[in-house]
Amino acid sequence: MANKAITSRDVDFAKWYTDVVKAAHLADYSNVKGCTVFEPNGYAIWERMQEVLDKMFKDTGHKNVYMPVLIPENLMKKEGELIEGFAPEVAWVTMGGSKELEERMCIRPTSETLFSDYYSSKVKSYRDLPLKYNQWCNVMRWEKETRPFLRSREFLWQEGHTVHESSAEAEKETKDMLNVYKTFFEEYLAIPVITGKKTEKEKFAGAEYSLTIESLMYNGVSLQSGTSHYFGQKFSKAYDIKFSNRNNELEYAYQTSWGVTTRMIGALIMVHSDDDGLVLPPRIAPTQVIIIPIGDNDEVKNLSNNIYDKLKANSIKVDIDNSEKSPGFKFAEAEVNGIPVRIEIGVRDLENNEITIARRDTKEKIKINKDEDIVNIVNNLMDKIQNNLYEQAKLRRDELTYECYKLEEVEKIMNSKPGFIRAMWCGDEACELKMKEIRGTKSRCILENEKAIDDKCIVCGKEAKHLVVWGIQY
Amino acid sequence: MANKAITSRDVDFAKWYTDVVKAAHLADYSNVKGCTVFEPNGYAIWERMQEVLDKMFKDTGHKNVYMPVLIPENLMKKEGELIEGFAPEVAWVTMGGSKELEERMCIRPTSETLFSDYYSSKVKSYRDLPLKYNQWCNVMRWEKETRPFLRSREFLWQEGHTVHESSAEAEKETKDMLNVYKTFFEEYLAIPVITGKKTEKEKFAGAEYSLTIESLMYNGVSLQSGTSHYFGQKFSKAYDIKFSNRNNELEYAYQTSWGVTTRMIGALIMVHSDDDGLVLPPRIAPTQVIIIPIGDNDEVKNLSNNIYDKLKANSIKVDIDNSEKSPGFKFAEAEVNGIPVRIEIGVRDLENNEITIARRDTKEKIKINKDEDIVNIVNNLMDKIQNNLYEQAKLRRDELTYECYKLEEVEKIMNSKPGFIRAMWCGDEACELKMKEIRGTKSRCILENEKAIDDKCIVCGKEAKHLVVWGIQY
Repeated sequence: MANKAITSRDVDFAKWYTDVVKAAHLADYSNVKGCTVFEPNGYAIWERMQEVLDKMFKDTGHKNVYMPVLIPENLMKKEGELIEGFAPEVAWVTMGGSKELEERMCIRPTSETLFSDYYSSKVKSYRDLPLKYNQWCNVMRWEKETRPFLRSREFLWQEGHTVHESSAEAEKETKDMLNVYKTFFEEYLAIPVITGKKTEKEKFAGAEYSLTIESLMYNGVSLQSGTSHYFGQKFSKAYDIKFSNRNNELEYAYQTSWGVTTRMIGALIMVHSDDDGLVLPPRIAPTQVIIIPIGDNDEVKNLSNNIYDKLKANSIKVDIDNSEKSPGFKFAEAEVNGIPVRIEIGVRDLENNEITIARRDTKEKIKINKDEDIVNIVNNLMDKIQNNLYEQAKLRRDELTYECYKLEEVEKIMNSKPGFIRAMWCGDEACELKMKEIRGTKSRCILENEKAIDDKCIVCGKEAKHLVVWGIQY
Repeated sequence: MANKAITSRDVDFAKWYTDVVKAAHLADYSNVKGCTVFEPNGYAIWERMQEVLDKMFKDTGHKNVYMPVLIPENLMKKEGELIEGFAPEVAWVTMGGSKELEERMCIRPTSETLFSDYYSSKVKSYRDLPLKYNQWCNVMRWEKETRPFLRSREFLWQEGHTVHESSAEAEKETKDMLNVYKTFFEEYLAIPVITGKKTEKEKFAGAEYSLTIESLMYNGVSLQSGTSHYFGQKFSKAYDIKFSNRNNELEYAYQTSWGVTTRMIGALIMVHSDDDGLVLPPRIAPTQVIIIPIGDNDEVKNLSNNIYDKLKANSIKVDIDNSEKSPGFKFAEAEVNGIPVRIEIGVRDLENNEITIARRDTKEKIKINKDEDIVNIVNNLMDKIQNNLYEQAKLRRDELTYECYKLEEVEKIMNSKPGFIRAMWCGDEACELKMKEIRGTKSRCILENEKAIDDKCIVCGKEAKHLVVWGIQY
């Protein structure tokens, strides 16, 4: 029985997406054009993501800081490519109180500018390096369309900014942080990702190169899910970050930046969820288990509380629904909210000393004896769910990954059952633009460590340089 | 031996404050006028404050959400007093990309507007109530002066916004949250506070009334440290938040809001710190214990690591300084950073099977046998430090609290050794303005549950209505 408030995802994927966002109370459109309200269920997922990632960042030697939300235009302009890339999409503050500002300031679309400016005053010697800082904050890009979590004028993210004494160390940081993202996606979000390098055309404005993780949604559309940029000395030259190196010579420092955003919540929805609503992997779910007592009965109540206490004592994120709604309503609500495990405790089951455990991913229900080791059972079940979601997503991703040798093949696939296209490319931007004519298909990334599958560019037929993954993007 | 980079607090308190902020690497001025950079040591204190408060909010039934950072002018204008109060000090966004906006938007100075707008679309029935939401975010007020943590254009805070079906419930929430703040200040920050009600003149724009916690700094200047506002139906009428009540009649809802900010870091500095730098109460310190191994010796190393592991395993926030700096430098750094407990492990002590423990607050050093129960010793010592800091602050606050009956007394005190003045007031704003002529002395709060100390207003001599605490404010 599918949730009536939710359009089938096979009928209208875009509508299904917004229905799930609404039905699971993740976000709401606001009266501020282009901005969304993060509702409690949605924000709780973000908090859980922050908790896990923040620990991963700190465990790899990063510290949190906070930079101003406004960037004066002149400071922004110092690195030419950056301002060129972002100028069309920033919001400008021109008045403070009732006074026109002498210099307008933009709301940060990203903070390379301020970090670089700060580093320029702090970095004197190689002994001060590396500085590995991160911030959690809001950013703004003046988008035209809004889709909750995927695209909105304001979103939340983390941005890591580091500065190093050598290119080797900075490049290692760039790769290491991409791997942190890959681990987070695969082990917590249960989303398999492809890693690679962006083409010149698709790289971050101002970067020497950009690394990316790319994931594939249920409908075959791909999502740029996290990026890690190597800047070399571009920003250090623009912002004058010089240090005396081990040979006592002045040298410009080497920088990186890397970020993931609230769009990850969109990925969770579009990879795992179904026609009954949200499906959350246990390792990222704010609530992992919900206990639903059925009937106003002392034995039911006591057992419910008892199981609640046991799970809680074992660090399982458990909730108990003691509201006055009907059991059927509570089941549906637990489902639409994507809670991985539901424990139903009712009089009839208890006559046989049993309780029922339902898993959200497969909808399977099992009955267990009420005296069995519930902590162990729930932990095992959560592992199974986590693995199953990952395997399902991987299977689908692999099914929707195609090797192509001719443009006609790409055209056919992208117009029927789109996905990731693996195809050779000569390195010429003109060929990327030609590919884009097929439903906006873009290069997702260059696979640097894989063997060529052909010696000719799929577009122009000239000598191929790179194996590239292509896709339609959000 | 006082830290040379720090001016004595008895010589120049303002200079001492900024010296401590700088020497402890808490914050730095930025090239964005009026905004500061929160450096790792400062931001870590904010994270710890967030961690504790967030748990207190969640334990009292609140959920986190996130509202847009921009507020369209028309939406802002709906509640007249609010816009009047904030209009002179908001930053206006007038351009998105290269386009002039049709309607300008301000960067939130506070979010009653957006919460009320959101609630108006969500609240239909008393069954939907209460809604108890909170958000952690940045806000902006276009101030002229900047003092790190105390006053800057952008700051970080939490703002709770709740909506209720009755005035009684909303008023209880207003009080309850003030008590949460009081508990947090007294039990975690070790800062005693006075609680009371703001006068009409000093209350929050748009509130029926505002409750406040007020604390006293080392130099006798008072700091408004947290506020909790009761709105009654003011915003619900302006933003049309109506619900069908238990009698099935449409009724306007009752609201509250409450907030504390990064200015609490300023309070920590100005209440506890000294000429050697920051002093942090153990319960709020991001690092509670630092281990400093002295000399390159296996026994020293092993014991240091061993103690580190033991403390960590017992949830004590411990760090170990294995850098190549000299022991003296490390001691001074631990001191300036305000780490409550320092453990020195050196060869000479170990010859007598001893290690040295130094407390930051009193500078006392004790030697203990290396095989004693270090976890127990450190925990006890931290309790002592926490209590001592609170008692010292309370003693000073009480010493600097004066009962006054004549304006001349106030004048004399405020020009020599200022502090809290307890004095009667008739309720007339003119008398508040008269008091303000004395070095800007303002009413801090009305003490509602204390006995009158006189029957005449200290200013005009007419019949007194309230016992009021007055002070010079930050």
